[in-house]
Amino acid sequence: MKALHKMKIVDVTQVMAGPYCTMVLGDLGAEVIKVEKYPKGDDTRDMGPYVNGESYCYMMINRNKKGIRLNLKKEQGKEILLKLVETADVFVENFRPGVTKKLGIDYDTLRKINPGLIYCSISGYGQTGPYSHKGGFDIMAQGMSGIMSMTGEKDGGPCKVGIAIHDIAASMTAVYNILAAYIHKLETGQGQYIDVSLVESGLAWTIWEAAAYFGAGEVPQRTGTRHRVSAPYQGIKTKDGYVLVGAANQRTWENFCKLVVNKPEWIEDPRFVTNQDRQKHVDELEKLIEEIFVNETTEYWVTKMEQAGVPGGPILTYDQTLNNEHILSRNMVEEVEHPVAGTIKMLGIPAKLSGTPGTIHRPAPTLGQHTEEVLKELNFSGEEIARLKKDEVI
Amino acid sequence: MKALHKMKIVDVTQVMAGPYCTMVLGDLGAEVIKVEKYPKGDDTRDMGPYVNGESYCYMMINRNKKGIRLNLKKEQGKEILLKLVETADVFVENFRPGVTKKLGIDYDTLRKINPGLIYCSISGYGQTGPYSHKGGFDIMAQGMSGIMSMTGEKDGGPCKVGIAIHDIAASMTAVYNILAAYIHKLETGQGQYIDVSLVESGLAWTIWEAAAYFGAGEVPQRTGTRHRVSAPYQGIKTKDGYVLVGAANQRTWENFCKLVVNKPEWIEDPRFVTNQDRQKHVDELEKLIEEIFVNETTEYWVTKMEQAGVPGGPILTYDQTLNNEHILSRNMVEEVEHPVAGTIKMLGIPAKLSGTPGTIHRPAPTLGQHTEEVLKELNFSGEEIARLKKDEVI
Repeated sequence: MKALHKMKIVDVTQVMAGPYCTMVLGDLGAEVIKVEKYPKGDDTRDMGPYVNGESYCYMMINRNKKGIRLNLKKEQGKEILLKLVETADVFVENFRPGVTKKLGIDYDTLRKINPGLIYCSISGYGQTGPYSHKGGFDIMAQGMSGIMSMTGEKDGGPCKVGIAIHDIAASMTAVYNILAAYIHKLETGQGQYIDVSLVESGLAWTIWEAAAYFGAGEVPQRTGTRHRVSAPYQGIKTKDGYVLVGAANQRTWENFCKLVVNKPEWIEDPRFVTNQDRQKHVDELEKLIEEIFVNETTEYWVTKMEQAGVPGGPILTYDQTLNNEHILSRNMVEEVEHPVAGTIKMLGIPAKLSGTPGTIHRPAPTLGQHTEEVLKELNFSGEEIARLKKDEVI
Repeated sequence: MKALHKMKIVDVTQVMAGPYCTMVLGDLGAEVIKVEKYPKGDDTRDMGPYVNGESYCYMMINRNKKGIRLNLKKEQGKEILLKLVETADVFVENFRPGVTKKLGIDYDTLRKINPGLIYCSISGYGQTGPYSHKGGFDIMAQGMSGIMSMTGEKDGGPCKVGIAIHDIAASMTAVYNILAAYIHKLETGQGQYIDVSLVESGLAWTIWEAAAYFGAGEVPQRTGTRHRVSAPYQGIKTKDGYVLVGAANQRTWENFCKLVVNKPEWIEDPRFVTNQDRQKHVDELEKLIEEIFVNETTEYWVTKMEQAGVPGGPILTYDQTLNNEHILSRNMVEEVEHPVAGTIKMLGIPAKLSGTPGTIHRPAPTLGQHTEEVLKELNFSGEEIARLKKDEVI
């Protein structure tokens, strides 16, 4: 049995923040009906790479969903959507604020059809406030939240996080709030409106940084791979890549000197006596460690640190990650059969549940794959379906 | 009414991944009893800055919880914990794998007392697999997942994400899986075990990157602030900071040339005709734009781009973020009264729910603040409580 086997979701989102949210709920067993725009569907279908014409990006993020194509700009299309919503628990959209009203599928309209509906809107800046009208992509949200200003080399410019972190933050925030609202609905029968923004979802994660600013007026700066207050706690170059050294306290620092780099004299060196001293002379310290580390491989130093009881680990390139024995042993790479693309690999399920584990039980839909099936469940006849096709509604 | 008003959580976690998870559940109304170790409590209490001796980091991440101090290494301490667990819905721990077994508070022990218990373990690498025994902090998880290798300047070294992204990823993954398991419990009465790891929780977010690798064998590299395939879509220096330009398609590019930088001749320039051309000559393009942008402020260029219909936005420093009019209008900075620290500011609630909004309704506990209250609810007498104190159990 799946935890969310009774939950039905109508999903009109596209690209990332919305689709990742409904993918996670689908992994846990919710029935997700993804409604794609007419004629070309989710914009992600235009993003490569492709396998037999199917977008890999699309297939990654839309597993465990049924897909229908629907022209919401036509009255008949809207009517079909409203019928779907009648029996849904959850509705998710990530249009720019104001668009659902124009389309006639805003919360005030849908709650009249289904008062128990949980209606979740995801947008760049939220539904209220002076910036709410702006379009906001992940990169602008990274700029707004301060996260970009804190990421990068100490003496370099700001860097974006390598993944679309605010899109995902909005997905996660939507997921857990939808589940909380569903628990409320199970108890009371009542639905509600949820307003999630990319900017705030990521900003809410800056806990230590907010403590530094609110508590001491400190503005967190870029530090490369370094820790803001401990040293050595950072990435160091090796013969074939980089390794992380995590000697955060005096005991691990001394073990590092004696057992990893064989430099017991560093313990007495006035530049490195306390953590504060090491932090002050971190440039010199890093240079000294690097001179030793570049002579051996990352694997060599990881093993050496583990033997010495010094926290450490590799900085893997992404191909190394996805081929790593531990990652594979945890089922983080799974395969699914897609009707057009064949066997394709995808990322697995991150949490392991003993009772109701998430699974990949359905490949992403081809464009409009389940349109007829879903319309038949709504009691449309074959003749009506043919007419809707001719009228460019589906 | 709060969505999770019936959920009771016993929380033995510390520092970040566990505490952020239970904070989010507390925001939504769950009763969280935070159990801190004897004698000094959560390690975060040692992290500055301080207000009247209270750690700001601790106060940020432990709001909406009751706090008790308990010596789990003493038999009487363990017995108290087991009593608390009898009536709990959820138990969360983030010890290194194996420690709960040694303490006698592992899942197999607690499920016997309470078969409906949802028991969530958060660890660096998960409970199984070749690396499960290793201690893993956020920075090592960033190294393992490949995210660090994809973050930083094109020609520089890897950079860590400015916030503790894998700690938070584990928190989020724990939150939504606990809620899914709770929905299952509401339906069946059954509890279950949840195994969450820092590494996998962040890895599961690398969707576009996995598509590039699985679909085309491409290993995503560092790109500074740049988009991997569009240009100009990146940060540019201004007179007083940085601004993001998001001219991802031909229409916005042409508007950018004509209306933002007044260089209509760039549209015909053979180096910049198509997105592919611009991507190929992005170094030159960035230099040309920067020569113009450094003459005016970030605010000037943000306004100019907005007028021209070109997506854009500032790269704010963190103090600018927390003082920004939009951020403040969305209640992302709230105040709470703390019995020792006085009025303190904290980050607000990222999602806005119409029916059961999250709130900050309780400051973080001082060390052991609710020990007596909670023990009295378990029917301990004043005399017994005094003895437990003397015996260094509480």
